[in-house]
Amino acid sequence: MTELYHVLGAKQFDRAFLDELFAAAEEMERVADEGGEQRYPNKIMSTLFFEASTRTRFSFESAMHRLGGRVIGTENASQFSSTIKGETLEDTIRIISGYSDLIVLRHTEIGAAKRAAAVSDVPVINAGDGSGEHPTQALLDLYTIQKELGGIEGAQIAMIGDLTYGRTVHSLSYLLANYRDARITFVSPDNVRIPSYVKRYLDEKGVAYAETADLESLAGVADVFYQTRIQKERFPSLEEYGKAEGKFIIDRALVDAMKRSALILHPLPRAGEIHPDVDADPRAAYFRQAQNGLYIRMALIERCFGGRR
Amino acid sequence: MTELYHVLGAKQFDRAFLDELFAAAEEMERVADEGGEQRYPNKIMSTLFFEASTRTRFSFESAMHRLGGRVIGTENASQFSSTIKGETLEDTIRIISGYSDLIVLRHTEIGAAKRAAAVSDVPVINAGDGSGEHPTQALLDLYTIQKELGGIEGAQIAMIGDLTYGRTVHSLSYLLANYRDARITFVSPDNVRIPSYVKRYLDEKGVAYAETADLESLAGVADVFYQTRIQKERFPSLEEYGKAEGKFIIDRALVDAMKRSALILHPLPRAGEIHPDVDADPRAAYFRQAQNGLYIRMALIERCFGGRR
Amino acid sequence: MTELYHVLGAKQFDRAFLDELFAAAEEMERVADEGGEQRYPNKIMSTLFFEASTRTRFSFESAMHRLGGRVIGTENASQFSSTIKGETLEDTIRIISGYSDLIVLRHTEIGAAKRAAAVSDVPVINAGDGSGEHPTQALLDLYTIQKELGGIEGAQIAMIGDLTYGRTVHSLSYLLANYRDARITFVSPDNVRIPSYVKRYLDEKGVAYAETADLESLAGVADVFYQTRIQKERFPSLEEYGKAEGKFIIDRALVDAMKRSALILHPLPRAGEIHPDVDADPRAAYFRQAQNGLYIRMALIERCFGGRR
Repeated sequence: MTELYHVLGAKQFDRAFLDELFAAAEEMERVADEGGEQRYPNKIMSTLFFEASTRTRFSFESAMHRLGGRVIGTENASQFSSTIKGETLEDTIRIISGYSDLIVLRHTEIGAAKRAAAVSDVPVINAGDGSGEHPTQALLDLYTIQKELGGIEGAQIAMIGDLTYGRTVHSLSYLLANYRDARITFVSPDNVRIPSYVKRYLDEKGVAYAETADLESLAGVADVFYQTRIQKERFPSLEEYGKAEGKFIIDRALVDAMKRSALILHPLPRAGEIHPDVDADPRAAYFRQAQNGLYIRMALIERCFGGRR
Repeated sequence: MTELYHVLGAKQFDRAFLDELFAAAEEMERVADEGGEQRYPNKIMSTLFFEASTRTRFSFESAMHRLGGRVIGTENASQFSSTIKGETLEDTIRIISGYSDLIVLRHTEIGAAKRAAAVSDVPVINAGDGSGEHPTQALLDLYTIQKELGGIEGAQIAMIGDLTYGRTVHSLSYLLANYRDARITFVSPDNVRIPSYVKRYLDEKGVAYAETADLESLAGVADVFYQTRIQKERFPSLEEYGKAEGKFIIDRALVDAMKRSALILHPLPRAGEIHPDVDADPRAAYFRQAQNGLYIRMALIERCFGGRR
Repeated sequence: MTELYHVLGAKQFDRAFLDELFAAAEEMERVADEGGEQRYPNKIMSTLFFEASTRTRFSFESAMHRLGGRVIGTENASQFSSTIKGETLEDTIRIISGYSDLIVLRHTEIGAAKRAAAVSDVPVINAGDGSGEHPTQALLDLYTIQKELGGIEGAQIAMIGDLTYGRTVHSLSYLLANYRDARITFVSPDNVRIPSYVKRYLDEKGVAYAETADLESLAGVADVFYQTRIQKERFPSLEEYGKAEGKFIIDRALVDAMKRSALILHPLPRAGEIHPDVDADPRAAYFRQAQNGLYIRMALIERCFGGRR
């Protein structure tokens, strides 16, 4: 098994690793369905969330428990920890890494996970760092595409919503550079378009992409509709937010125009960008996608431990 | 073993189930006293508390641990989860039910547990939904009466305090409809009397009840004094609260006038409605009652798993 | 093994206990390094933190997990528990002690741990009570001195910073009374000097101590520099805080003047009292000290259980 030390950003993964990880995730699906295994009865995972995210935290903690491990956690590190007493992230990590075998870090600042990894004695998994990256989300997104479509190569993927502040979109774009002929169309309001540094990366890697504000034109074309939330808290002003809100909604009419084999994804939570009456459609894969998060995180945890129990 | 899927409200239980549950709780008392058993080493329980309640959460989590299970939890889901990002309860439950084998839900809205159960893939236990119901509290209350008095039939039960907003009183009243000749006296300030829908239910089931504002007249008559807190946070206005506060206190004088076999219960926390100098009296059963919560919840968890390990 | 019931304050320990505890901590270091042991698979520890302290909580929870035990916890008991509904600490403890085998209590009021122990059915460990005591911190401090210097007798120990509100300094002073010829120098701003009740205790026990505001004069003399944080939240006014802040910093220049065998300790978190460029110096022992907290707490937990599994 390839040992993986830290999980910091989507760019660190190559195709061989992704193939191996997805195979492991498939095995983990079996392990979880059979109720879990006692693989790491003595291992301790710390979930250090400086920004609350109940769902992501539960997903990691469930993954650790399904592998028989132990968890210590905090859901609001920023508000209650020694941070308010002026402690640096580095000092916090130096100490927590002595109390656990793996650290899952959610932070508000770009680059926090990298800084943590630099001083940690144990593996660090980036569970989201501000508007930076969210690599485990991107891995489960990609795994879902492969599982549902049967493969990623040649897929036409529409990424919709707030593409400036939506870190999952950035991370997923980086991952797609590992696949031949994947084509991305970025669909966003004008004020939250995909950043130029993401486009530059895709250019370097030779990934085909386009930008549009016309979602309907893609209805019968795209294989994957990756919808995202317009995140109020990531906008610099209420005025900028107002311009982006409520645009590009996936509703029944749009779904009816999609290919029968199309896939609707969303990192969740959603706040209205996908109409609930779409939920029952077999193309609506977002809850299956959330479930895949469990299997991917189980596979990642196993890799962080390098198979050592 | 009768399998129980969801625990939503006190009306769902019949006498056969209650007898079986109480027998199981008795066995659980033995299990806990011997330090617990590894019955469910791979099972995960989620405690999803949208309204904080340290005691209730600890009681459920301890119950799960005493059965060898695992717990993932949040103590303030409303403040920190994706709820503030606009996610519906249904979406949250759909996802969390993929990460765990059992969900314990405390929520601020009436009917939340029922809505959760409708979309969950795993059993949901209602740990209190606003001023709705709190069925596990009612079950432990009733178990305590049976255990301490030797039986429930024919018992005269005074329920005291805020009977409008006190959900435990509602749930306990519903449960008592399963027993012959149980007589309830509702003792409350005028502005927080027992709701008419509770009385209607008792009428339908043929349960005898009365209403009074005179607690002292019951001193030598009632077998059970079920005291409750005047819950400030459930009142529409401070003025309404002021009218109810500080009335109907159980103190030494009242206890001295009670039968020797009488029982004083309280769902706790208390804030002065039972004077501390009553604690040492053998009739003061509220701490034993809280302890019974552990056994009842162990028995309920086992039923939710249908005995499958 | 000496059974220890409650851990309330540093004065309760004698030399024989300390020697035994430190030997146990050494063994625990081996246990932890080998990944932990399943010594208490059925035991439940409650961490009841009325004042948040992520690090201290993690240290206790990790210790319990390394011994194979289970944890239920709350990180902000004061804000969310039944406390806001008016419940006394005594009532809370009476109930929680029925749900767990050990209670770790962090509270804001002096004497809280003692009050808890008076009504608890299970051992209580004081994890800090206001500006009172923090005995487990003092034990790990002392263990670090013994481990790093090879012994405590004859050591010259400088305690620096806010000595009025710094409870770890008080607890450590009490512990040092168990060792012959330990000499303490208290180094502090004038407005936060060591309290007279601590000095009285040292007088009674015949411990030699001095007071100064001149840190530099100790540079080549002291064996241990026990630096502490100026805790803003413990000061009565902002003006008093202003006088104490930013004084007595340990920086490169001071370290260069220290003995080669000197030891720099800090209970952490630090907020600038030790300059980061000191971290790489072998005399900077504060991260090793934090790590020792794990071993000492494992040893204490074992003693609380009296070796019974």
